[in-house]
Amino acid sequence: MKKLIGAALLGQSGGPTSVINASAAGVFLEALKHEEITNVYAGIHGIRGILDEDFYDINQEDLEELERLKYTPSSAIGSVRYKLADPSKDDTDYKRLLEVFKKYNIRYFFYNGGNDSMDTCNKISKFMQKENWDVRIVGVPKTIDNDLNGTDHTPGFSSAAKYVATTLMEVYLDATVYDIKNVTIVEIMGRNAGWLAAAANIPKSLGYGPDLIYLPEVDFNIDDFFCQVGELLEQKNAVVIAVSEGIRSNGKYIPELFNENISKDAFGHAQLGGTASILAHKVKEKFGTKTRAIEFSLLQRAAAHLASQTDIDEAYTAGSKAVLAALDGLTDVMVGFKRISNNPYKIDYTLIPLETAANIEQKVPLEWILPHGKGLTKEYNDYVLPLIQGETKLEKENSLPRFARLKKIRVAKK
Amino acid sequence: MKKLIGAALLGQSGGPTSVINASAAGVFLEALKHEEITNVYAGIHGIRGILDEDFYDINQEDLEELERLKYTPSSAIGSVRYKLADPSKDDTDYKRLLEVFKKYNIRYFFYNGGNDSMDTCNKISKFMQKENWDVRIVGVPKTIDNDLNGTDHTPGFSSAAKYVATTLMEVYLDATVYDIKNVTIVEIMGRNAGWLAAAANIPKSLGYGPDLIYLPEVDFNIDDFFCQVGELLEQKNAVVIAVSEGIRSNGKYIPELFNENISKDAFGHAQLGGTASILAHKVKEKFGTKTRAIEFSLLQRAAAHLASQTDIDEAYTAGSKAVLAALDGLTDVMVGFKRISNNPYKIDYTLIPLETAANIEQKVPLEWILPHGKGLTKEYNDYVLPLIQGETKLEKENSLPRFARLKKIRVAKK
Repeated sequence: MKKLIGAALLGQSGGPTSVINASAAGVFLEALKHEEITNVYAGIHGIRGILDEDFYDINQEDLEELERLKYTPSSAIGSVRYKLADPSKDDTDYKRLLEVFKKYNIRYFFYNGGNDSMDTCNKISKFMQKENWDVRIVGVPKTIDNDLNGTDHTPGFSSAAKYVATTLMEVYLDATVYDIKNVTIVEIMGRNAGWLAAAANIPKSLGYGPDLIYLPEVDFNIDDFFCQVGELLEQKNAVVIAVSEGIRSNGKYIPELFNENISKDAFGHAQLGGTASILAHKVKEKFGTKTRAIEFSLLQRAAAHLASQTDIDEAYTAGSKAVLAALDGLTDVMVGFKRISNNPYKIDYTLIPLETAANIEQKVPLEWILPHGKGLTKEYNDYVLPLIQGETKLEKENSLPRFARLKKIRVAKK
Repeated sequence: MKKLIGAALLGQSGGPTSVINASAAGVFLEALKHEEITNVYAGIHGIRGILDEDFYDINQEDLEELERLKYTPSSAIGSVRYKLADPSKDDTDYKRLLEVFKKYNIRYFFYNGGNDSMDTCNKISKFMQKENWDVRIVGVPKTIDNDLNGTDHTPGFSSAAKYVATTLMEVYLDATVYDIKNVTIVEIMGRNAGWLAAAANIPKSLGYGPDLIYLPEVDFNIDDFFCQVGELLEQKNAVVIAVSEGIRSNGKYIPELFNENISKDAFGHAQLGGTASILAHKVKEKFGTKTRAIEFSLLQRAAAHLASQTDIDEAYTAGSKAVLAALDGLTDVMVGFKRISNNPYKIDYTLIPLETAANIEQKVPLEWILPHGKGLTKEYNDYVLPLIQGETKLEKENSLPRFARLKKIRVAKK
């Protein structure tokens, strides 16, 4: 195979995770080792930075700071939510990307993101092939939602699941401390797939609640919900509930469902907005108990201090495997994981066609979900427990995280 | 000094912290060592359990599980928010307490709580003296608010401060990732004292935001706030702001200011929360930017996985010192800390009259607070940094916290 000589470019896209930078570290550190790769660039704010020729020069970074990226949350090179048009309708952006790729001799393009990013990768790849620009395009998966198709799981999910499990254990101990009736509702990310909210099942199996868990895979019935809460309030003082932000009743998200009430609340009442807040308000109205809504918000995807070392290692290796695959002549693929065994936990790294990975959401199997919010079957715990193992090796300085400090030197525009 | 033979009783009160059980461990493990102490009891849900003769028998617990209490968040024996009446007006509860103390021969009473609990201790002590029941009463401080008078700091605060600092570093990296204008407002606990919200100054000094910090010690002016936010939005895309839940404008809490209903607890304290949401809504209205409100909620006081080992050790020792002081014949005091030096960090344990500790709130010195939300002076960081040092020795099992598992055997009612 003829060696392809040129620059490598990485972009990050979508919502950050606590290990997306571990994948970036894998791409950077692997790419820097190979002489075919003349330069290593990072597109600032993903596609946005590429369209603007706005790159960091990774060759100028210290290797030890790049190593520290493994333990640094969020997207160190900036992220973006920018959807490329369908190229058959408007190919302006694609032409511009081709121009930039040619100008900087980009021959290796890595894009680190979720479903939409894999779709973006795929469209760019098809366009470049049509225009005969020889560039190898490999997707590096990330999403706390764990909904990418064709892979056993996705980097970012495992650490978020560990955060959810650990934090819920702590919240449960706090929320059950008083001798009065009270209901705590915790909201966990996941628009359409409940993988992350399902991580609430780990503390539940250990005796640390939550009492009820609701996922978007199952229609949310408010009457059934009230019935479950009411039964529990008869048995105990404190009820703890985990809900996915994506639960829907007849296709309507909870904030949509109670739209009238929301708009009545003038200036940003605490009850406004979040699914947990609205449900807490409804429970208070119905049962007159003290209620509290907790949103894990950005914390669940940014908590590098609580990341799973398994996740960090896999995210890093996924980045490095992407570079090796591209150097091997592969393109139009995403790195994925295939589980070989659970005990001992073992995976193989695979390469999945971008078309398979993009735009299909992998959801929690319905047969794993118990009815009436009662949690999940053993299969879910068997699936998730190996992923959260291992404590992060994040370095501390003055007992605070010592995150990567990149120089962020911009590449001079050509 | 004549030895006082009898049972020891511990109660926990008020909002939990991640180290309040470390103090309980200190009380229990010390009390179990001394033969003057015939029994070690825990009052279930504080005063409530004492009034109801509802005790756990600590003598029946395994010592290694009691050791694990050091690393277990929240109040293991249950907490309460119950206000004793002024004994000159209604001494029913006091008479009942005396009856219970006599019935179980309670000669050592330890109460683990904040300002209100020290006031409770003080009232009980005075009543017992008047009735000639010889009991030694020692307060063990706890509060994440750090507002107890007469002590350099309070167990629980240091770990919460470490949580706030670490989590804000992570949130800052996540919140500043996009190339669009956005404002993130983080709400931190602290009703009247801003010690904990001020911990946002630690990441700020390290270059991890937040850009603005608002404490309850300084009147919150919404126009000045908008002015600061507006200036920052001209300079950068992402603005991160930390607010104490207790900030007030002309004496009115933010939710009050915008006509929300605020419920009050048994002590007449406003149940806050929603300050960040309301301000985020106002900012969105004013500047049209994307906004996000994050409440650290229970997480900041329950996050044992991120506790400061300094705090754990001090909380434990405070419990043990309380027992030793009582055995030495002292009563009507609270254990406190006196700082000897910052570098190396060194404290002495002191004993403070309950009257000094109770009902006076220690606030952040005004001269440490910079105007216009610009943060705090170096004095604050010098004060707080030694307190957050040391990583918790919390044991893990399957990469999840292994918290104490108490038998919780109830004492037979006499």
